[in-house]
Amino acid sequence: MKFIAFTTKDKENTRLGVYKNSESIVIDLNTIGLSRFFHDMNDLIKNIKPKDIDVLKEVISLVEEKEYETYHVEEITLGAPIDRTIHDVICVGLNYAEHIDETKKGFDENMEIPLHTVYFSKRANQVKGPGEEIESHSHLNESMDYEVELAVIIGKEGINISKEEAKEYIFGYTILNDLSARGLQKNHVQWFRGKSLDGFTSMGPCIVHGSSVGFPLELDIKSRVNDELRQNSNTKFMMKDVSTIISEISQGMTLLPGDVIATGTPSGVGMGFTPPRFLKAGDTVECEIQHMGLLKNKIK
Amino acid sequence: MKFIAFTTKDKENTRLGVYKNSESIVIDLNTIGLSRFFHDMNDLIKNIKPKDIDVLKEVISLVEEKEYETYHVEEITLGAPIDRTIHDVICVGLNYAEHIDETKKGFDENMEIPLHTVYFSKRANQVKGPGEEIESHSHLNESMDYEVELAVIIGKEGINISKEEAKEYIFGYTILNDLSARGLQKNHVQWFRGKSLDGFTSMGPCIVHGSSVGFPLELDIKSRVNDELRQNSNTKFMMKDVSTIISEISQGMTLLPGDVIATGTPSGVGMGFTPPRFLKAGDTVECEIQHMGLLKNKIK
Repeated sequence: MKFIAFTTKDKENTRLGVYKNSESIVIDLNTIGLSRFFHDMNDLIKNIKPKDIDVLKEVISLVEEKEYETYHVEEITLGAPIDRTIHDVICVGLNYAEHIDETKKGFDENMEIPLHTVYFSKRANQVKGPGEEIESHSHLNESMDYEVELAVIIGKEGINISKEEAKEYIFGYTILNDLSARGLQKNHVQWFRGKSLDGFTSMGPCIVHGSSVGFPLELDIKSRVNDELRQNSNTKFMMKDVSTIISEISQGMTLLPGDVIATGTPSGVGMGFTPPRFLKAGDTVECEIQHMGLLKNKIK
Repeated sequence: MKFIAFTTKDKENTRLGVYKNSESIVIDLNTIGLSRFFHDMNDLIKNIKPKDIDVLKEVISLVEEKEYETYHVEEITLGAPIDRTIHDVICVGLNYAEHIDETKKGFDENMEIPLHTVYFSKRANQVKGPGEEIESHSHLNESMDYEVELAVIIGKEGINISKEEAKEYIFGYTILNDLSARGLQKNHVQWFRGKSLDGFTSMGPCIVHGSSVGFPLELDIKSRVNDELRQNSNTKFMMKDVSTIISEISQGMTLLPGDVIATGTPSGVGMGFTPPRFLKAGDTVECEIQHMGLLKNKIK
């Protein structure tokens, strides 16, 4: 089941939808009599009930399209599934082995390989959705870089979550491009500023519900710049898997429904090339994760 | 003018108040006919009008107490002025010269002195107010440390703010104790996790409105542990002053009303002693900034 946020020509408001199986038809999920009206995706993530999920599954699989408010995908414009995150996005750094190698080479030769998971956070002002243009802030940043990441969306409040229980706290997953201003990231020592420029988080095209994906995750993850394959790995190569991450970051720190955790990027980012291949205005970046679709943005 | 969030025995809800000049009397500011009802401090920061400030000034200085809903301070319990921040708190690291020395000594001998301002962020789950107890999370952390900081509360949305304009974007100031789990902070390389345990942000006792404090800021800043003076400096010794910080962090990144920026701590934190003097259950930490009052919390 894939949740989306979308607009149509006839109504300005962003609405919430699910795809029918073919993904050519979208159902406005607030028109099918779920347990309540969901104002936005954060509201849905926090308040949707298991019985709503059952209803949605039934609607998707059985019911005639015409009985509900449906749209052909050509009629809709997708937005970021979460356009305003409830907190800054929690990010895991250096979670694929070959990305550590390229980071040593392209970012910091003196970097020691961390023994523990690296967590930082990223202000997600103006989250960009599929197809939206992203400002490079080139006057501040001549080293804009892409990072395709699997993002986990937390569905249930929890603290001190065990690895074994972690899956229960997941609402779903989306693709996140953790855009980075490498110069700022390096200069300011801590990574917050270099990760947090307006528009430097893009997400989408949908949130795939946790029940729709096998666990542990074994998903191809790729990025392309101007149609050239740059990153190409699989989430099974994460050094810390999703359960470990949720368990560790929740020790002593409560996670809330709507929290977003970006789980790190595989090798192939721009700073890893010699010379580096940073993004510039006019470039197109595609991030792709198996079963989750394609998140494409143009840099301006 | 000092804004507070408080409860009383007779009503459960947190209310917003201002002190009369003596600070022995609190006025419930939603009872005096301002331009609208303010639901919480973030709502007030975002929506209060200059004319409301004028009304408040008049009420504070002229009007008989009995005409408004007032309380003696003995009748109220202060809460954190902002109990839920709109984003993670933006923190400035290493902003007082002598704190850099003690950080090299007590935290990371190999640390290079940064040429640029260090920005990181801190999840502020369960912000603690004056008098509240703070969980040490001792099973995760045997190196809990205190850091008294001046926190700036942003009052107006802005991006690419110049140093000269920075003051206009300030709503006010409060005291923030940036509690830190030094072991986690160091192990995880980036500081987010070590700064973000539940309850590791305390704030208060009030927000001092920007119009009530001279600018640039020249305020004594101190902390005590169990009545022993530990930190003792003045905000004029910040290496990057408040205007510089607001200007720099807003380059390419929008600040919103309610954003909190903690401006760094002076020397004297626990990790700077030989051997280190970390906090333990039963300790009392007091943070004090001139004109802003005292923020006292007990560790449990």
